[in-house]
Amino acid sequence: MPAPAEGARTRRTGSTRRQFLLGGAVAGAGAVAAVGVDLALNRRQETPVTPAAPMNGENTVPFFGVHQAGVDTDAQAHGVFVALDLHGDVDRVALTRLLRILTDDAARLTQGKPALADSEPELSHAPARLTVTFGFGPGLVARASGSGPAWLSPLPAFRVDQLRPEFSDGDLLLQIAGDDPLTVAHATRMLLKDARGFADVRWTQQGFRRAYGTERPGTTMRNLFGQVDGTTNPRPGTDDFDEVVWTTDGWLAGGTGMVVRRIRMDLDKWDRLDRSGRDASVGRTLANGAPLTGTDEFDEPDFEAKTSIGFPVIPQFAHMRRARGDGSERIFRRAYNYDERPTGTQVSDSGLIFVSFQADIERQFTPMQRRLDELDLLNEWTTPIGSAVFAVPPGCAEDGFIGDTLLT
Amino acid sequence: MPAPAEGARTRRTGSTRRQFLLGGAVAGAGAVAAVGVDLALNRRQETPVTPAAPMNGENTVPFFGVHQAGVDTDAQAHGVFVALDLHGDVDRVALTRLLRILTDDAARLTQGKPALADSEPELSHAPARLTVTFGFGPGLVARASGSGPAWLSPLPAFRVDQLRPEFSDGDLLLQIAGDDPLTVAHATRMLLKDARGFADVRWTQQGFRRAYGTERPGTTMRNLFGQVDGTTNPRPGTDDFDEVVWTTDGWLAGGTGMVVRRIRMDLDKWDRLDRSGRDASVGRTLANGAPLTGTDEFDEPDFEAKTSIGFPVIPQFAHMRRARGDGSERIFRRAYNYDERPTGTQVSDSGLIFVSFQADIERQFTPMQRRLDELDLLNEWTTPIGSAVFAVPPGCAEDGFIGDTLLT
Repeated sequence: MPAPAEGARTRRTGSTRRQFLLGGAVAGAGAVAAVGVDLALNRRQETPVTPAAPMNGENTVPFFGVHQAGVDTDAQAHGVFVALDLHGDVDRVALTRLLRILTDDAARLTQGKPALADSEPELSHAPARLTVTFGFGPGLVARASGSGPAWLSPLPAFRVDQLRPEFSDGDLLLQIAGDDPLTVAHATRMLLKDARGFADVRWTQQGFRRAYGTERPGTTMRNLFGQVDGTTNPRPGTDDFDEVVWTTDGWLAGGTGMVVRRIRMDLDKWDRLDRSGRDASVGRTLANGAPLTGTDEFDEPDFEAKTSIGFPVIPQFAHMRRARGDGSERIFRRAYNYDERPTGTQVSDSGLIFVSFQADIERQFTPMQRRLDELDLLNEWTTPIGSAVFAVPPGCAEDGFIGDTLLT
Repeated sequence: MPAPAEGARTRRTGSTRRQFLLGGAVAGAGAVAAVGVDLALNRRQETPVTPAAPMNGENTVPFFGVHQAGVDTDAQAHGVFVALDLHGDVDRVALTRLLRILTDDAARLTQGKPALADSEPELSHAPARLTVTFGFGPGLVARASGSGPAWLSPLPAFRVDQLRPEFSDGDLLLQIAGDDPLTVAHATRMLLKDARGFADVRWTQQGFRRAYGTERPGTTMRNLFGQVDGTTNPRPGTDDFDEVVWTTDGWLAGGTGMVVRRIRMDLDKWDRLDRSGRDASVGRTLANGAPLTGTDEFDEPDFEAKTSIGFPVIPQFAHMRRARGDGSERIFRRAYNYDERPTGTQVSDSGLIFVSFQADIERQFTPMQRRLDELDLLNEWTTPIGSAVFAVPPGCAEDGFIGDTLLT
């Protein structure tokens, strides 16, 4: 068993510059001291610079307002989606009580305060931009003796779907999102404890995006295929965001429609596709997300451009072309990746929790999905295995509760 | 269906102070402009301050060195643990090839560079303190025709254990940890792709701690019970860390012993325990982690202190007292929480991926665990469901590979 010289092993990549700068000091010291300095340098090298105050843990997103938070909020790193089925005996009065309780919990937790009767209040003190967003399924609206919107029902069946009930539908959706996974876990638990007397969990999905601090804010997310996802999203506060997202209709005015679809991604099959095949399948260069007719992610694609032998540069089957259509249907995507512990004989269990918000699902989302169902090369590597539709009611005032426009 | 005044709904918690400071400007403007200012303020409120450069995504932990990274590295937010079983035909030569390949992958990925033949190189560019740490199970050492250390075998059976094979044992452990979940997912995938020709995944466990930026570095982690976990840890670079963690023995010199145990935590049963019962079960005040005989987390506990009626202030059954013993056995804990998507009739699937590093598992870890097995009130709410032991070899030089002291 050979033992390589310690000297060779103490060299650590990255400390070269600091060692150079401190070279004089090290040269002037004995060997033992030099090792000490080297170790100290290495330790410093490993410890990230403390970011300027305030810590992100202290950052909050206001809960009360015209719209619910968690839609136009810059997407946080972690998102948990829980769909609940109301118990059979939950009538309009009980439903109101449930929503008042959950609103109170969410209003406190998102501001870094414990929920009432919080069993682990210490886990509430770092909200890290926590938001809780409520969505109402058809069953809840019926239980409230409410009506509409017209699009609030399961999406039409698509050929590509292999939907599983354990990832589909539900009466009440909770989207719990934040930059800290412990905070999100605790908030989820507190909300479910209070919901338990009224409803059972139908399904849970857990997703992630880039962590806080990984990239500059505003960078388009990448999914596990490496594709940029959301380049053409309308930007909150600009473009046609308000028109795309917020409805002005009846009790839902100030709210929106939400689609949650679990898209399994076959990473192993995707591996067998070469780079140009990957680029063509989406219509974008993976490296920087630019359309195949451009050089920058945000360049407008030229769907008319032809190759020298007359084929479209952005192929007919490319996801981007199919999704775009004539450009009249716009949605706001806010997806999360999932990558779960594989079980049994699975090599991986990965994909995308596709989430989109739009004022009218039937007018904006369904035609787009129908085009993608008919033709989209990405269908070769992706399979929708869950699907749910919710009406996201407007926000509420401090003396109100989420759903008060439907229930009072 | 009542429609509350928009005015009431535009009020968002948290912008009060800014509105006050800008009160004059708002007062002097028309109503429409005032709404615009209010919205702009709200938007600013929601957008976190961009941290000072460099972004944490660019932070790297050196790969090469005396010790492997990921042991004395400040624990990152996300940790994935994958145990592999070597294929039957993997001999010493093939094992060497496997470890050379995985070393090369880890050396690149941890420095923010794509692995060779990386299928999604764009996902490698933000290491966010990624580390990859290798551990060798008894089967791997035997396959290398190596011997020892003496403690490298499954732990003795404990009464509290309800071990499941799908979370226990394994030939080769990969601990992949980093502050960004997408980076960790990608690195895991690249490593497993290259391992696939040599080994199958036996189990995977995914855990989390506080995100980067949530708390000041050095804050002791809390688990999902809300307990501080790791207060008495030796601190890298100080105390008796080196003596506790690093072995000086044979091919493992510069390495350590690693215990990975999956501890299911019954959060619902824990909920039924009041605060004083919770404090007593651990021997610490949950609020700040102080021992029941002190006021600060790092106060030395007084195990002799008695209450006015003569009972020990820190009960005989308290986890802290039982774990401590006479103080001669010390370990370095580096645990991760888990909180998985509940399936079937589960309400939750939560707990702790207990990870500890110590030079000699039999001398340092096992006696402690035996005491906890005999008496520890926490056993009422926790159940070990997985257990594995690994020898973590030393680091390597840039022209070496992890395991070279065993295999060359």
